[in-house]
Amino acid sequence: MVIEYTQLYDFTKKILLQIGCPEADAKLAADVLLSADLRGVDSHGVARLSGYIRLWEKKRINAQPNIKTIYETPSTAVVDGDAGLGLVVAPFAMRVAIEKAKNVGTGWVSVKNSNHYGIAGYHSMMALEHDMIGISFTNASPLVSPTFSKERLLGTNPISVAIPAGEEPPFVADMATTTAANGKLEILQRKNADAPFGWVQDGEGRPTQDANGVKKGGALLPLGGDREHGSHKGYALGSIVDIFSAILSGANYGPWVPPFVAFLEPDPNPVGEGLGHFFGAMRVDAFRPTSEFKSHMDNWIKRFRAAKPTPGNPKVLIPGDPERELETERMNKGIPLLEPVFEDLQSLGEKFGVRL
Amino acid sequence: MVIEYTQLYDFTKKILLQIGCPEADAKLAADVLLSADLRGVDSHGVARLSGYIRLWEKKRINAQPNIKTIYETPSTAVVDGDAGLGLVVAPFAMRVAIEKAKNVGTGWVSVKNSNHYGIAGYHSMMALEHDMIGISFTNASPLVSPTFSKERLLGTNPISVAIPAGEEPPFVADMATTTAANGKLEILQRKNADAPFGWVQDGEGRPTQDANGVKKGGALLPLGGDREHGSHKGYALGSIVDIFSAILSGANYGPWVPPFVAFLEPDPNPVGEGLGHFFGAMRVDAFRPTSEFKSHMDNWIKRFRAAKPTPGNPKVLIPGDPERELETERMNKGIPLLEPVFEDLQSLGEKFGVRL
Repeated sequence: MVIEYTQLYDFTKKILLQIGCPEADAKLAADVLLSADLRGVDSHGVARLSGYIRLWEKKRINAQPNIKTIYETPSTAVVDGDAGLGLVVAPFAMRVAIEKAKNVGTGWVSVKNSNHYGIAGYHSMMALEHDMIGISFTNASPLVSPTFSKERLLGTNPISVAIPAGEEPPFVADMATTTAANGKLEILQRKNADAPFGWVQDGEGRPTQDANGVKKGGALLPLGGDREHGSHKGYALGSIVDIFSAILSGANYGPWVPPFVAFLEPDPNPVGEGLGHFFGAMRVDAFRPTSEFKSHMDNWIKRFRAAKPTPGNPKVLIPGDPERELETERMNKGIPLLEPVFEDLQSLGEKFGVRL
Repeated sequence: MVIEYTQLYDFTKKILLQIGCPEADAKLAADVLLSADLRGVDSHGVARLSGYIRLWEKKRINAQPNIKTIYETPSTAVVDGDAGLGLVVAPFAMRVAIEKAKNVGTGWVSVKNSNHYGIAGYHSMMALEHDMIGISFTNASPLVSPTFSKERLLGTNPISVAIPAGEEPPFVADMATTTAANGKLEILQRKNADAPFGWVQDGEGRPTQDANGVKKGGALLPLGGDREHGSHKGYALGSIVDIFSAILSGANYGPWVPPFVAFLEPDPNPVGEGLGHFFGAMRVDAFRPTSEFKSHMDNWIKRFRAAKPTPGNPKVLIPGDPERELETERMNKGIPLLEPVFEDLQSLGEKFGVRL
């Protein structure tokens, strides 16, 4: 099933209007959500729309939030998302970071009382048109076990960094701090295939190849997979994302981060408000003239792209290459949806009187 | 061979005075270098002293540099290290970042024209006594191949983040963006043991277990090890470190970073000056009151430490725990040196008339 971008965008916007989002917020949230589908991060796009709506039904998402800066210095701010859609709260906070960078060179914003914000890369890339480097982190529901831990204490806590170039397209890294994203496990689950070792541990904390291991009480593993391959580094990265996103702002952290799924209740004794994000914007010309920076970025990208490849691989990629190619393709040819996702959207549409 | 800290410190300081370092610089550089030995990063401590001296002999290190800020905004600066010891340039730049953070909440400093700066964690930890989060990156000689690349284009490019806590000791992550550090390979080389897959590729770009694979023209692998285990993420992280350290500042990047070993000449057509670093300092109270932040950090640390461990492992560690324990032990009981390192220091001492 392939659906045109504009159709899917209109559908998403209309659903969000139906739950009471203001027009501008519905448009922005649809744009953020759909950017995941365009860029091939299917697990973070429209497949999640009904999940957001269920959270709204549970009154855990506020469709008309009063998002505001509650504390600031010349280069920093804390934003309270008022339990709004992360899809709307995050761009607000990133704009605050960009404004601060215009004034003093860089801007850094930690956010509390938010919800799932879609793909990290949407927000970091907002900096690019201002000739700034953009940074975006978020914490997330606990699905990941630190090295040596049987318990799940961290989310997939992604890191995204977007860096402008000149003639070359920008460098855009957007990665979970785990070996593999949950979306990759879902693909294996549908195929009834095993996962490689290093992706998952079982409920007893033992390595497993069971692609359903997380659902059965196990956990995703931090980037590195096991101690011998540096999982303590992935654990440290996920922890940094958690602390910057939640302890700087006053959101929930670690095992207290509210679950995305509405059928699980948040911890009755939270340590903060909602979940947390962290954003940064650095003006390139706060360091050196933009033209110099960009020409060296072009040179960097060209040199890496020209590297001799390993056997069986056609070329070396620059972070962001695969997503950008897919974005162009899907914008032109439409977005493929799995049958269960399409059916889920249809029943959502029926409920709110919106046709897909 | 175990040597007392003070003996090794005095020896290092005297050698640095002999090459013409000012007293304050010799003390600081010895302090930075020895912190690696204390914290168990033996590959970055006194074992490298004769390497620095050989670079000085080749006039690639300037013992009396005029380190200065050459460009700045309220929250950013670019520092020119004047080819000085990275051990001295880096603390200078970190102090600039800390001063900026005092004024506007955060400070971000990119450095060019520097040399190897010891362990990343020394510099990030400078922020802790100011109740700031410290960040430290550096690029390094190209020993690492990006995902799908046969060529070595990146250094081990470490990331260090130090975060203050209250009653608990600070969180200190300090990690190469590779699966394993070169120092771990050296241990295997001495034992004639194989490396695990995922650490090294051979000169043809194929996976290998040869612990001498890098010396034979192969490469270290980015954190993740192979594509299936997320090596593109380690590659992206190493790239971010490279770009922040060198393209923001005007240092050499990627394959142009000058080699640490004096017997290899730097590229005759450099793209910048020396190697690059990047530092950040964020005042905790630029986001929320320090006491609140610290009490939540304590809670975070206690919760993670209390996690149920996986079978066969006694407990979950917090980043920085192993290094801190070793630091206390080695400060009291002395620093173990391998025989070849001790002999190397002795012949260095003879050359400069300093007794070890």
